[in-house]
Amino acid sequence: MAQLPWRRLRNPYRPIEILSDDQVEAIRDASLTILEEIGMDFLHPEALTILRAAGADVESGSQRVRFDRALIEDALVRAPSSFTLHARNPQHDLIIGGDHLCFTLVASPPNVTDIERGRRPGNFRDYCDLLRLGQSFNIVHMFGGYPVEPIDLPPESRHLDAIHAFVTLTDKVFHGYSLGRERIRDAIEMTRIARGASAEQLLQEPSLFSIVNTSSPLRLDGPMIEGIIELARHNQPVVITPFTLSGAMSPVTLAGALAQQNAEALAGLAFAQLVNPGAPVVYGGFTSNVDMKSGAPAFGTPEYVKATLAGGQLARRQGLPYRSSNANACNIVDAQAAYESQMSLWAAVMGHANIVMHAAGWLEGGLTASFEKLVIDVELLQMQAELLAPVEVNEATLGLAAIREVAPGGHFFGAAHTLERFETAFYAPMVSDWRNYESWLEAGAPDATQRANRIYKEVLAGYQPPPLDPARRDELDAFVAQRKAAGGVRAA
Amino acid sequence: MAQLPWRRLRNPYRPIEILSDDQVEAIRDASLTILEEIGMDFLHPEALTILRAAGADVESGSQRVRFDRALIEDALVRAPSSFTLHARNPQHDLIIGGDHLCFTLVASPPNVTDIERGRRPGNFRDYCDLLRLGQSFNIVHMFGGYPVEPIDLPPESRHLDAIHAFVTLTDKVFHGYSLGRERIRDAIEMTRIARGASAEQLLQEPSLFSIVNTSSPLRLDGPMIEGIIELARHNQPVVITPFTLSGAMSPVTLAGALAQQNAEALAGLAFAQLVNPGAPVVYGGFTSNVDMKSGAPAFGTPEYVKATLAGGQLARRQGLPYRSSNANACNIVDAQAAYESQMSLWAAVMGHANIVMHAAGWLEGGLTASFEKLVIDVELLQMQAELLAPVEVNEATLGLAAIREVAPGGHFFGAAHTLERFETAFYAPMVSDWRNYESWLEAGAPDATQRANRIYKEVLAGYQPPPLDPARRDELDAFVAQRKAAGGVRAA
Repeated sequence: MAQLPWRRLRNPYRPIEILSDDQVEAIRDASLTILEEIGMDFLHPEALTILRAAGADVESGSQRVRFDRALIEDALVRAPSSFTLHARNPQHDLIIGGDHLCFTLVASPPNVTDIERGRRPGNFRDYCDLLRLGQSFNIVHMFGGYPVEPIDLPPESRHLDAIHAFVTLTDKVFHGYSLGRERIRDAIEMTRIARGASAEQLLQEPSLFSIVNTSSPLRLDGPMIEGIIELARHNQPVVITPFTLSGAMSPVTLAGALAQQNAEALAGLAFAQLVNPGAPVVYGGFTSNVDMKSGAPAFGTPEYVKATLAGGQLARRQGLPYRSSNANACNIVDAQAAYESQMSLWAAVMGHANIVMHAAGWLEGGLTASFEKLVIDVELLQMQAELLAPVEVNEATLGLAAIREVAPGGHFFGAAHTLERFETAFYAPMVSDWRNYESWLEAGAPDATQRANRIYKEVLAGYQPPPLDPARRDELDAFVAQRKAAGGVRAA
Repeated sequence: MAQLPWRRLRNPYRPIEILSDDQVEAIRDASLTILEEIGMDFLHPEALTILRAAGADVESGSQRVRFDRALIEDALVRAPSSFTLHARNPQHDLIIGGDHLCFTLVASPPNVTDIERGRRPGNFRDYCDLLRLGQSFNIVHMFGGYPVEPIDLPPESRHLDAIHAFVTLTDKVFHGYSLGRERIRDAIEMTRIARGASAEQLLQEPSLFSIVNTSSPLRLDGPMIEGIIELARHNQPVVITPFTLSGAMSPVTLAGALAQQNAEALAGLAFAQLVNPGAPVVYGGFTSNVDMKSGAPAFGTPEYVKATLAGGQLARRQGLPYRSSNANACNIVDAQAAYESQMSLWAAVMGHANIVMHAAGWLEGGLTASFEKLVIDVELLQMQAELLAPVEVNEATLGLAAIREVAPGGHFFGAAHTLERFETAFYAPMVSDWRNYESWLEAGAPDATQRANRIYKEVLAGYQPPPLDPARRDELDAFVAQRKAAGGVRAA
């Protein structure tokens, strides 16, 4: 399967900015007023202790915390504007921040689908196949979580098998869920083993990241808080992403939803900085709107695009890396799935997101991972990568000699200038079918989704696991066995 | 059918610029060198006379014309940076240039398709139905040509029936083909009658436009030249669009293709200015790449996007309105059609095109007009329109009172702030289906293309012809009858 080579992407273009500087300040100011006057609930006693010690106003007998704006601002001063995220294969190390752009595989759907087998509950076999695809496609820079929830694995040890698979089937950066202290500690330890690093080295080298969603409006749950605390203490990056669906979990107005998003993100990020000043963090944006007829979440809408572009402005205002998503709300891999994804993706890329979550494979508002959508998304991501490669303008590319040679009325197919370059001049698509109608009809008239189906199976068939030091593998196996023998993570 | 109201669109955001100022100058400079040293063929004696009189270097015994760069620059100084294009319904007048954005219906495919009837040669019945849809959808601002070629009409009088249908079935701005002097004169006269205007008034009020493609590389055909001359003399806008497919009709390098595009466009536009200084003109960009394996044209590719964005920079460098397209090379209305169209459309909108040709209904690289694609494109265009509506940031939209009222852990569905706004807060989609999977399955699991099929039939069924002054209608009928009696346009 021809594909683009692995490379780190950088965005050389100016971001699309839809808010004026004044509007950014007004939204930021409102968000700080929210934190000062309304406050946010932190559902964990340790968080309340940390916040009280830092000078936040913890309402007596409750979990409501109010923040002086100076407290937020001072805490965030030390957050790095960019950092390196280390993979077990150093070739796959990533820079998060600045003009860098990283794409993740789909994360967290409960279901999985492909054409032949239809929609089914998540399971470990599909989980592993999706990991193999994420490893195989160079444009997928990292794993943003479980590409599908392997619900056939017991909950107490699921994270052990899932991370074991990340380490053995892939060599890219992966994600650990902040579902309580034990799980995230296991994830950090397995990451350390995978990298063959000491605990001290891991402290210096962020290698595991975690998405923490707030429970909007204005609430951070206990297991998530434990994740933030553990990750920040280990100097591993946390992405705080408010789930501010406008009209449901945040105001129906975009400005209001963004003000609330910014309040929740800054509160969570400031909290991580209070735990460990200077720990790597990322500003997450996930504001979209609901369908006001049904309350169903929508993605890739004009409002979603605006929120994504504005979110980038708010993150940059704070000097933080930015996370967005390639989202859609479609039930099937059709024109809607593609046009909604393109809305989301253009907004993420042109809004200068540094991490684009769910970049490949997300369907149905995140309820399903699709094998065919994954392949189609890889095509979209590769096109964005090509778009970000700057245009070369010089004597050779201006091609006046070729234009002179061909002369008015001629054609360039046979020109030396063409022949020297034609093999690499243009992006060669993976899914797109440019045959003429008759040839395409004769070939069975396959649509893009059917072609994507063929491609994913071809890529899976050609998958080779990346090499892993046997000593690390043994240590990893032993760790998993020992943790399973101890009963894994007990239910709360 | 719920849709956005008619409105003129303006783009409040800064364009995406992928070339540095130096690169723009280098490409422009190369284009002027092409015109100085290589020259361009003008295949019409009248053009050669006009150009020679203006001081261009017409090669003896040939049609090759070379231009001193000062001649090009001086000629273009008088071209307006924007102008009003008058429709027969003044509500549908358009401004072309500046930050204005206009969408046209698909133009010129030889075939037409829909789900039930399949792909078939263009015909007058489908032609009229496509006009009815273009009239019905408010987001379609104008007609860019015949939405499908009505090949069942005899060529000598086809333009008479086709324009008669524009005038009677629609009241928006339309296009006349520059296929020789007689046809474009007929189109101008029918436009005059439709508007109930005098010849003098029409001279002051541009009301008919025409796309003129160069025959790349570096050639302008006779019938097109006659169109330019007639339109410029009547002060009606000409859009000069080089058809510079990179690797076939222009260099395989983007910089070279753009240099050639700019050369051809500037030569054609300067020629129009020499015919009538100050006549309204538009800079057209249509540079894309071919599939180097087959030579087939590709659209919506990364190269296409770059050419579109760069084309906008070149047009603005010259102070001219800019025309681009919503193009794709797909054979069917599937995910590919949607993702390629989104690439083209985002580039056109963010590259600040003033006219987006083929904005609704183009399929198969322009070989087919699709009823379903038309509807899906309308959805894409409406989403762009919503995206261009600036975010409102003020006390009411920041919604602090609502956030206070809902409080941490609540929800906004029932908040007064939500209830006051929910009916108009978000874009209400036409095609997109946001039902949950189970409801969607129960409804027969229709894909976006099937939903679009239903919608186009519904809109056609509800079509009402716009009112037309009976006197104008009579005059128009009489003109067509008289021209047909005279044999129409005789074959060359």
